[in-house]
Amino acid sequence: MDSGWYTVDLNCDMGESYGAYQIGNDEAIFPYITSANIACGFHAGDPAVMKKTVRLALKHNVAIGAHPGLPDLQGFGRREMSVSAEEAYDMVMYQIGALNGFVQSEGGVLHHVKPHGALYNMAATNKNLAEAIVEAVYKINPQLVLYGLSGSELIKAGSHIGLGVVNEVFADRTYQDNGTLTSRRSADALITDEGRAVAQSLRMVREGAVTAVSGRNISIQADTICLHGDGAHAVTFAAKIHTLFKEKNIALQAP
Amino acid sequence: MDSGWYTVDLNCDMGESYGAYQIGNDEAIFPYITSANIACGFHAGDPAVMKKTVRLALKHNVAIGAHPGLPDLQGFGRREMSVSAEEAYDMVMYQIGALNGFVQSEGGVLHHVKPHGALYNMAATNKNLAEAIVEAVYKINPQLVLYGLSGSELIKAGSHIGLGVVNEVFADRTYQDNGTLTSRRSADALITDEGRAVAQSLRMVREGAVTAVSGRNISIQADTICLHGDGAHAVTFAAKIHTLFKEKNIALQAP
Amino acid sequence: MDSGWYTVDLNCDMGESYGAYQIGNDEAIFPYITSANIACGFHAGDPAVMKKTVRLALKHNVAIGAHPGLPDLQGFGRREMSVSAEEAYDMVMYQIGALNGFVQSEGGVLHHVKPHGALYNMAATNKNLAEAIVEAVYKINPQLVLYGLSGSELIKAGSHIGLGVVNEVFADRTYQDNGTLTSRRSADALITDEGRAVAQSLRMVREGAVTAVSGRNISIQADTICLHGDGAHAVTFAAKIHTLFKEKNIALQAP
Amino acid sequence: MDSGWYTVDLNCDMGESYGAYQIGNDEAIFPYITSANIACGFHAGDPAVMKKTVRLALKHNVAIGAHPGLPDLQGFGRREMSVSAEEAYDMVMYQIGALNGFVQSEGGVLHHVKPHGALYNMAATNKNLAEAIVEAVYKINPQLVLYGLSGSELIKAGSHIGLGVVNEVFADRTYQDNGTLTSRRSADALITDEGRAVAQSLRMVREGAVTAVSGRNISIQADTICLHGDGAHAVTFAAKIHTLFKEKNIALQAP
Repeated sequence: MDSGWYTVDLNCDMGESYGAYQIGNDEAIFPYITSANIACGFHAGDPAVMKKTVRLALKHNVAIGAHPGLPDLQGFGRREMSVSAEEAYDMVMYQIGALNGFVQSEGGVLHHVKPHGALYNMAATNKNLAEAIVEAVYKINPQLVLYGLSGSELIKAGSHIGLGVVNEVFADRTYQDNGTLTSRRSADALITDEGRAVAQSLRMVREGAVTAVSGRNISIQADTICLHGDGAHAVTFAAKIHTLFKEKNIALQAP
Repeated sequence: MDSGWYTVDLNCDMGESYGAYQIGNDEAIFPYITSANIACGFHAGDPAVMKKTVRLALKHNVAIGAHPGLPDLQGFGRREMSVSAEEAYDMVMYQIGALNGFVQSEGGVLHHVKPHGALYNMAATNKNLAEAIVEAVYKINPQLVLYGLSGSELIKAGSHIGLGVVNEVFADRTYQDNGTLTSRRSADALITDEGRAVAQSLRMVREGAVTAVSGRNISIQADTICLHGDGAHAVTFAAKIHTLFKEKNIALQAP
Repeated sequence: MDSGWYTVDLNCDMGESYGAYQIGNDEAIFPYITSANIACGFHAGDPAVMKKTVRLALKHNVAIGAHPGLPDLQGFGRREMSVSAEEAYDMVMYQIGALNGFVQSEGGVLHHVKPHGALYNMAATNKNLAEAIVEAVYKINPQLVLYGLSGSELIKAGSHIGLGVVNEVFADRTYQDNGTLTSRRSADALITDEGRAVAQSLRMVREGAVTAVSGRNISIQADTICLHGDGAHAVTFAAKIHTLFKEKNIALQAP
Repeated sequence: MDSGWYTVDLNCDMGESYGAYQIGNDEAIFPYITSANIACGFHAGDPAVMKKTVRLALKHNVAIGAHPGLPDLQGFGRREMSVSAEEAYDMVMYQIGALNGFVQSEGGVLHHVKPHGALYNMAATNKNLAEAIVEAVYKINPQLVLYGLSGSELIKAGSHIGLGVVNEVFADRTYQDNGTLTSRRSADALITDEGRAVAQSLRMVREGAVTAVSGRNISIQADTICLHGDGAHAVTFAAKIHTLFKEKNIALQAP
């Protein structure tokens, strides 16, 4: 089982500051991750933050992804909105394009797209929305890689249209029997114990399995692990998981 | 003087609707113009409008330009803001990128950039701002053509950095002795008589001259003429000038 | 049944323009209505429009209501958002207060509150949301009257907290057996025939009944009828219903 | 000179967080101030933050002021915009009204208005803008007190229309010979030495004088001192000045 040669990506949502408002500790996190999902101005981020974050990613040789969200800065893109599939297509296209301007002009290459927050969650289960989103990604550039919740409708739609897809798992979130994340409204949604979060991550990568909140073992594909950029312990946790994976001979690299 | 072989571009600001709000009569204007400046979501336009307008431009074989503005939807980008040169760079880059997403994904090629409203006016006289804007255009793609007020700082900065530049004149605006537009706050800023607007346009193209409000003749370079997309007579005026120029053997085409 | 003395309010959503963008024909509609719901800047309206619309309402002696909506200008407040009850309370309080500034400063008195679009629809069926909204209305001023969908959770919550409530019906919308409006996604949601719309209105006022799309007669309380301010025939329809009701001795006045 | 009975107000800008974004340390600052200027959602603040901040002010028995700003969240209201006098009137009215909703509904009374950032600065020197702002304040409630830069056009306009006015001085900003603040673009705009800032404050209150950057002594009226709510040392500085003033028998209270 633990024969040794695994590869995984560590991704983190970046560039979530806005004007005078700071969120996250991007500079400190960058050394520990292999891909960055950069907010595109709808739920977080502004043009100045986007440029700065793209430059940081290039400096740290981290794969750059667009992280489009719902047009809801006040709600940080976490409130579901009943957007149509076409509206989802349009807002994803706009945001990918906007980020791509900064990437191209800095001499970089846009690598992937990962929807944010409520858009990510809706696209995990809503097939129409998922198809609209992957169509936008594919039409702007079929070489782009799609990040989505492991096993989700978004991943299925991405594969179907011909995109490279990356199954995302979470170090510090618990899972339901059907592979979905436990809702943040539940008391047991988050894993606050760092050791347990690291152990869950390691097992997902090496065994392709996770223990759901019911106690059942479920299989899960872990191509990339989502780290969080804010919170008191974000940097130390990123450093810890980075170090441990290196020790366990798990290669860290973007897909 | 009027030997016959002139070429000029007819451009119009397009895609200025927003959500439920309609401005302009884009479909009716498209047949008469050769290049379209499409709003990018800051002063007007939204992702759905941008996509639709890009498709219309492609259908009518009209050159597509990004039309970035200040982040002021309520003021339609017409209120000056004391943005720094770097902020101007960032907002122009963002908006060009966003529009380019729609252009690329529809199989088109972005042709030019023309700043909007207060950003256009500030860049006509503020050298720092002008340099920041042309740097953004150049860095995202040095093949892009820059549209700016004829003889302005923006045009000079564009030439200096190595962009192709297009000097814009206005059919229905009056001019000062120094070649700037008469402020909209003056009673004589606008030419409401269609015949006079057409005559002024024709003379600018053929003679490179215009009569300023002072009565003096000044020289002016007219590479493109700006038509307006809204207002009661926008479509008939566009049709009229289109027809007249054809009759006068003035070739209409994008630079 | 038709003995003669009925009273009803005719209300219309007003002040929905925004900056350079015009919606509706407020000046032409005002003479025919008895209460106006004025947009408060979240889904439509801006401070200049609000002031102008308040002045028009005072001039026409029309009762002034706040018309708070979701923070979604692009979607015109018509896209549902998963806002919490507390968020709904906060956004309603903010918007009522903002409009009230203009009303007070012009020497008027704020009369009522009617939520807009998706907020109106969500509050019609979601009891928690309805309770939060009526709490905001009650706490800012318990004399305010609440307008809501006839028979809805919003009306029930308003009555329960002690507000005066006004049951709203629609001239040009069809009804389901349970008294809810047919979804706009259905082909038979709208009544486009003016005669039929007028007849439905008249019957709702005089008989307290309406024929649902199933053909069943259902009872409905009609304290106010919602007219629409935009669309090609808005003004003529408002004039027609106003005239007819007068002829039928139905008194038109705000509650 | 230092006979003993002085009174001054300590004010601080509050409620500047927005959605997921935190700025300032309001809860820690409140015990040391006597009046709070609460952001109203245009340059900072959102309805949830406004409600929470109003509640904190009431709990700490601090006078509540509206702190209206330009509609520029990204620029935190610090970028000048060429708004017309009427636009300034409208945006100030809207924001005062919005905050007043929360104040009234919590059983409080709105005490004052202080414009924010670029609006404050423009109104200090632009008489038309100043007159429009004080008209909005006066028309919504002539009992409201106006805070403005000591000796500014805003203060003059407020006095002229009949408002109570409060001359504001800054502990940590340097002054020009004409009584204006040194521009933040100058290296010597800020006083970073706490002792010097405290000494300047004390002298302004007791002697009505301050030493300008030129070395000249100028007279200045100090009715209220502006403290800053963010920055590493904001709370300790507020505590220090609060303690010192108490020791010096300077009464701290809102006007």
